[in-house]
Amino acid sequence: MHNKYLLTDEWKIIEDRWNPKLHQGSESLFSIGNGFMGQRANFEEDYSGQSLQGSYIGGVYYPDKTRVGWWKNGYPEYFAKVLNSVNWIGIRFRVDGQEIDLAQLKVLNFRRELNMKEGYLFRSFSVELAEGKVFSAEVMRFISMKRKEIGAIRYNFKLEGFSAPVEIVPYLDFDVENHDSNYDEKFWEGIEENVATQKAVIKARTKKLDFEVAAAMRYELYQGSGEPLPLYPKESSRDKYAENAFTIQAKADSTYSLYKYAAICSSFHDPKESLVQRADELASQARRDGFKVLLEEQINDWKARWEQSDIIIEGDNEAQQGIRFNIFQLTQTYTGEDARLNIGPKGFTGEKYGGSTYWDTEAYCLPFYMASAGKDVARNLLIYRYNHLQKAIENAAKLGFTNGAALYPMVTMNGEECHNEWEITFEEIHRNGAIAYAIFNYVRYFGDEAYLAEYGLEVLMGIARFWAQRFNWSESKQQYVMLGVTGPNEYENNVNNNWYTNYLAKWCLEYAADCHKLVAQQSPADLKRIEAKAQFKAEEELALWKKISSAVYLPVDENLGIVLQQEGYLDKEQRMADDLPNEERPINQHWSWDRILRSCFIKQADVLQGFYFFEDHFSSEELKRNFEFYEPRTVHESSLSPCVHVVQAASLGMMDKAYEMYLRTSRLDLDDYNREVHEGLHITSMAGTWMSVVEGFGGMRVRDGRLHFNPRLPEHWQGIAFKINFRNSVLKVHLHADKHQIEKISGDPVEVIVHGETISL
Amino acid sequence: MHNKYLLTDEWKIIEDRWNPKLHQGSESLFSIGNGFMGQRANFEEDYSGQSLQGSYIGGVYYPDKTRVGWWKNGYPEYFAKVLNSVNWIGIRFRVDGQEIDLAQLKVLNFRRELNMKEGYLFRSFSVELAEGKVFSAEVMRFISMKRKEIGAIRYNFKLEGFSAPVEIVPYLDFDVENHDSNYDEKFWEGIEENVATQKAVIKARTKKLDFEVAAAMRYELYQGSGEPLPLYPKESSRDKYAENAFTIQAKADSTYSLYKYAAICSSFHDPKESLVQRADELASQARRDGFKVLLEEQINDWKARWEQSDIIIEGDNEAQQGIRFNIFQLTQTYTGEDARLNIGPKGFTGEKYGGSTYWDTEAYCLPFYMASAGKDVARNLLIYRYNHLQKAIENAAKLGFTNGAALYPMVTMNGEECHNEWEITFEEIHRNGAIAYAIFNYVRYFGDEAYLAEYGLEVLMGIARFWAQRFNWSESKQQYVMLGVTGPNEYENNVNNNWYTNYLAKWCLEYAADCHKLVAQQSPADLKRIEAKAQFKAEEELALWKKISSAVYLPVDENLGIVLQQEGYLDKEQRMADDLPNEERPINQHWSWDRILRSCFIKQADVLQGFYFFEDHFSSEELKRNFEFYEPRTVHESSLSPCVHVVQAASLGMMDKAYEMYLRTSRLDLDDYNREVHEGLHITSMAGTWMSVVEGFGGMRVRDGRLHFNPRLPEHWQGIAFKINFRNSVLKVHLHADKHQIEKISGDPVEVIVHGETISL
Repeated sequence: MHNKYLLTDEWKIIEDRWNPKLHQGSESLFSIGNGFMGQRANFEEDYSGQSLQGSYIGGVYYPDKTRVGWWKNGYPEYFAKVLNSVNWIGIRFRVDGQEIDLAQLKVLNFRRELNMKEGYLFRSFSVELAEGKVFSAEVMRFISMKRKEIGAIRYNFKLEGFSAPVEIVPYLDFDVENHDSNYDEKFWEGIEENVATQKAVIKARTKKLDFEVAAAMRYELYQGSGEPLPLYPKESSRDKYAENAFTIQAKADSTYSLYKYAAICSSFHDPKESLVQRADELASQARRDGFKVLLEEQINDWKARWEQSDIIIEGDNEAQQGIRFNIFQLTQTYTGEDARLNIGPKGFTGEKYGGSTYWDTEAYCLPFYMASAGKDVARNLLIYRYNHLQKAIENAAKLGFTNGAALYPMVTMNGEECHNEWEITFEEIHRNGAIAYAIFNYVRYFGDEAYLAEYGLEVLMGIARFWAQRFNWSESKQQYVMLGVTGPNEYENNVNNNWYTNYLAKWCLEYAADCHKLVAQQSPADLKRIEAKAQFKAEEELALWKKISSAVYLPVDENLGIVLQQEGYLDKEQRMADDLPNEERPINQHWSWDRILRSCFIKQADVLQGFYFFEDHFSSEELKRNFEFYEPRTVHESSLSPCVHVVQAASLGMMDKAYEMYLRTSRLDLDDYNREVHEGLHITSMAGTWMSVVEGFGGMRVRDGRLHFNPRLPEHWQGIAFKINFRNSVLKVHLHADKHQIEKISGDPVEVIVHGETISL
Repeated sequence: MHNKYLLTDEWKIIEDRWNPKLHQGSESLFSIGNGFMGQRANFEEDYSGQSLQGSYIGGVYYPDKTRVGWWKNGYPEYFAKVLNSVNWIGIRFRVDGQEIDLAQLKVLNFRRELNMKEGYLFRSFSVELAEGKVFSAEVMRFISMKRKEIGAIRYNFKLEGFSAPVEIVPYLDFDVENHDSNYDEKFWEGIEENVATQKAVIKARTKKLDFEVAAAMRYELYQGSGEPLPLYPKESSRDKYAENAFTIQAKADSTYSLYKYAAICSSFHDPKESLVQRADELASQARRDGFKVLLEEQINDWKARWEQSDIIIEGDNEAQQGIRFNIFQLTQTYTGEDARLNIGPKGFTGEKYGGSTYWDTEAYCLPFYMASAGKDVARNLLIYRYNHLQKAIENAAKLGFTNGAALYPMVTMNGEECHNEWEITFEEIHRNGAIAYAIFNYVRYFGDEAYLAEYGLEVLMGIARFWAQRFNWSESKQQYVMLGVTGPNEYENNVNNNWYTNYLAKWCLEYAADCHKLVAQQSPADLKRIEAKAQFKAEEELALWKKISSAVYLPVDENLGIVLQQEGYLDKEQRMADDLPNEERPINQHWSWDRILRSCFIKQADVLQGFYFFEDHFSSEELKRNFEFYEPRTVHESSLSPCVHVVQAASLGMMDKAYEMYLRTSRLDLDDYNREVHEGLHITSMAGTWMSVVEGFGGMRVRDGRLHFNPRLPEHWQGIAFKINFRNSVLKVHLHADKHQIEKISGDPVEVIVHGETISL
């Protein structure tokens, strides 16, 4: 089913031959970024073949007018598109008048490497020109982790055994398009273009929202290791575009190095009036410091990050490469320095799905960032939602809710809902619960109860108010029911009493009440402020929450001893995913939607997502019964599905199942299981891979404020090693099948429990 | 809530003042047609104000590329749009250089009349030109019922007390647009334009499907009652357009009459190569015969039609006007002469909803056409679906069904599905049952059992095969269930065990088996042919149908003594439609979709639709309990809702409710209850108005092959009178509260039962 063409290497992703059909997928896989911006592995030189150009800037998006077949009341006016921004990498080459374009020339050799250890992209190739002449190049490119606005390129080239004029055109270009534009519009309009000798700076504005972005470039050309060559370029510009064009008489077999430095500044971070000047200065500074210095900074920065976040898997190179690829991409996507940013489903690697934030962040990504990046980064992820509380209240009001009830959007850039499928937008409301759960998870992990008084409680109250209105009393059941929802398993729409949603909502009501009590005890002044702001009628509302949460209908089947995904689930024809003919899989590409909906097949963990979140509420027999019932009915057609199953299978000792699921999550994109890597990477599900190793095979849990490990490794793994931020300490954990080694690197004393044995550090 | 601006008249619709805001609505209301083509009441002269240009030709449509937000497997590639076709009415007037355009000039008086008795549109107006000069006009227009391709206009005008040059430009124009075009495309491309003195013919082709249409015109100008004036027009044409332009020196206070004759021929009826010549000849013939002859034909034709289809309501002019308006528009939409045509939801009065055929035809329109237009017309309506059987089988196959199962489309032009909302397209499958019910209804009405062997059984078998696969066995219920459907009440989506659908499907299985048996007895040779064609394994399939139909789950509530709209309906918060605040109605304009879905509110008869179809299966106590439960929860936000309730309320003696509902259906468009008449008329629901009078107040039913009447009239109605085709007879029925008079006009002897008393005629 999947597609293997990359070499296995512990620290690199390597493609060692040219296959234009795989190029757009490789453009995704070899993407680079620094948490503030990112760039697909497009070529610097012109490429006329199939490609998805992508240069993205965190926080800068486009509200594209909604496109629907049939409008439903409540749909948002726009869908926030991940915006393809300035092409800053472009350098055109013409050798003796012939364009260097890999789609038009015979490619003699080709290699592409993503150096994850040091954080750069490398590419080498040779192409055959007219009369059999050969042009060779080696290109290195990175986006600086340290200097958030800087991208740098070293483009080495050589004419093999012949001399010829080479025209070189470094440029900047805002005249780009989004493939997913709803009405084939371009989203940028030019503001200014300044071009001079060996430099340019241009500025553009988005046609809506007025984001402004300035991009500046510098470049230099060297022959061998000498001084930069003096150049007399022809400067030119047009709307949204600026270039320098110059021609050198290149000598046979001599290596020429073009260094291009780009700086990209946006109004998301800096005042509009200073963008041009600032970009220009940063590019100039980068040129002065030079490629070597920038690269050293990059290597050192990544070294420090790996020091903190690396996971070592001993005895399984594929798994090792997989986990590092996931950690690398997650780190490139979000560094946690700016609470206005979040983790888009494709990060900076593609346009698909638009929006920047899904419930993926809270349900799947938070654990990775808590453990690897630490408390401040994790806190910023929570504060992101705190800052959107007012918008969530407005969103709920649009759907008829009152009294400060908050419904967080399914997809958002700025807190407003973007998505427009009624069964998702209006009904996949369990997302609200994940946002509450993340607060719980964070407080449990870091013991940071002060967060509740400062930010958390307000969010929890808005969410609880929503659930209190969203349940309704059923006269016929004499319990509270929740009608018309879509659970995490999106292969069921508009169902009644989805167990996961009901359970989570009930828990939200209880947890919000608990936190209210805690803040009342610990920070009465804060409580007063919060209650006044929310016009919270404590007695009445708390009583209502209690009344509801104590009488929520939760569907179960006593005979099977399982909870029911939703009311009526057992009316379906019961089939196993393994019995599906291969040619009908994935069903979402072969079956009509209604057939999927009325089948018993499950897209991703739904009941089991609840067992994952609330593992401690259930016995392992209960988990086992539910896992054994639901997993065989699960088709794992969401990238978010396998990880939860790894964690649970490992905890139940079903190691074959756990390892099968692990390969699916860790190499999902590398081996292109879902045949869609050309559209971008599955960034948020990458955190699930981390979860699979640390919580799954490592068996890490937090209970009563202490860290527990119950390692169970796949048979051929000798061990796993990783570092963990926990509370105020940093631990180094090395787990084997039969032994373990845990040391504290820094921080407060801490107790760790491994296989039931307490270790004080 | 509604909007009254028309004068009440027994035989006319009259608008007696100019209000540009109402113009687009009047364009719909005053539409004219002849079952083959139709024309909105657009002005002949240029009009720069708000208007929906509409000239439609039966059977000629455009497959517009589907537009969706999120694609679902199984969606059709296109949506068949009702195609705005050639503008054949256009005549431009310039008086002393000033354009006659009611949007730009002061309108001194204005009157528009739809003469339903004689089948024409009349309009008179005066406008003020520069220097206070007055231009007056009287315009008469009709589309010939007898000559299916012919439209004729008499445009009388006068300069009031002044002389001036008047430029007159009759033209033909295919360069028109559809407002509902998905991608702002124009759908026609020109093929040829021929223009000469006082004549033109042009031909165009649709950009897809290659429908070709030719339009020809002739015209003549008269002064007073003299001979036609000699004209020397300037001829011109461009792509898709041809005109004649001439100027006369018009004398003060003299009446000039411009007669324009148009002929429109399409490749739906005639060979492409002869279209131009045929249109030209027909237009020429119309001119030779002249307006007076054509108008006489028209009056006579309508006289004969009214003779047959009129309903007289004594004592209620508004109701009288309403019912005639409905009959008039139904007759203009479908005459039953061509089994490839059907009754579009907007007929020839607008573009909305596209497609030509919904389940409206079988569920709501058939009774009107059976009784008013007779057996051949009704039969053609059934054969329409017979001709689409293969497409229905292909449609079901697309959704995963096998073995010749047939699913008729929700919306179609040629038998293929057009619609693209998953909850409708894939799930509102009860439409299949209505198609089977129509066969039953027709056979019951006309006693034409031969139809089954000839056409009906094949359709019934395909439908039964679909239901047999669509039910699934529920282990948990030990009954057959039907999951994931949308009932007639579209304010519930993707529900399980919708009572109406389950009941109807069960009945279909039984009826198909009954008909199989009947044909086996009556026409064994036909059965053999049918079984061979369908590869029908009689024993096995009939046994399966029986097994399923005898064990279908039908949700009920024993306590309330009602059937349940669907499983779980009583979990909803139970509210009454009357308790809804006025500012929240209609809820489909004020509530978000999810809120509507989880509310108990009902868009249109759902359970009660089942009680309507299968009235004889239930006692009147059962009907009463269900009516009293469901009707108060019904918001009647579909135009198809009130009529069923009229019939049932009348039969239960709830005459106030019946009359309230009757006004809603009969004057829905005239009084614009739903604020959407500007988009076109609700043609199919007009048949519901007929149903309301004849089956509701007249209490007409067919039982055991005999006609029953149980009249119950609204208090202020003195009586109702209508003619009825029944079996091989035509009856004249005159019903009063306390007496009745029924006579046979022609045909076989027949027994009629009125209030239980048998009358032999």
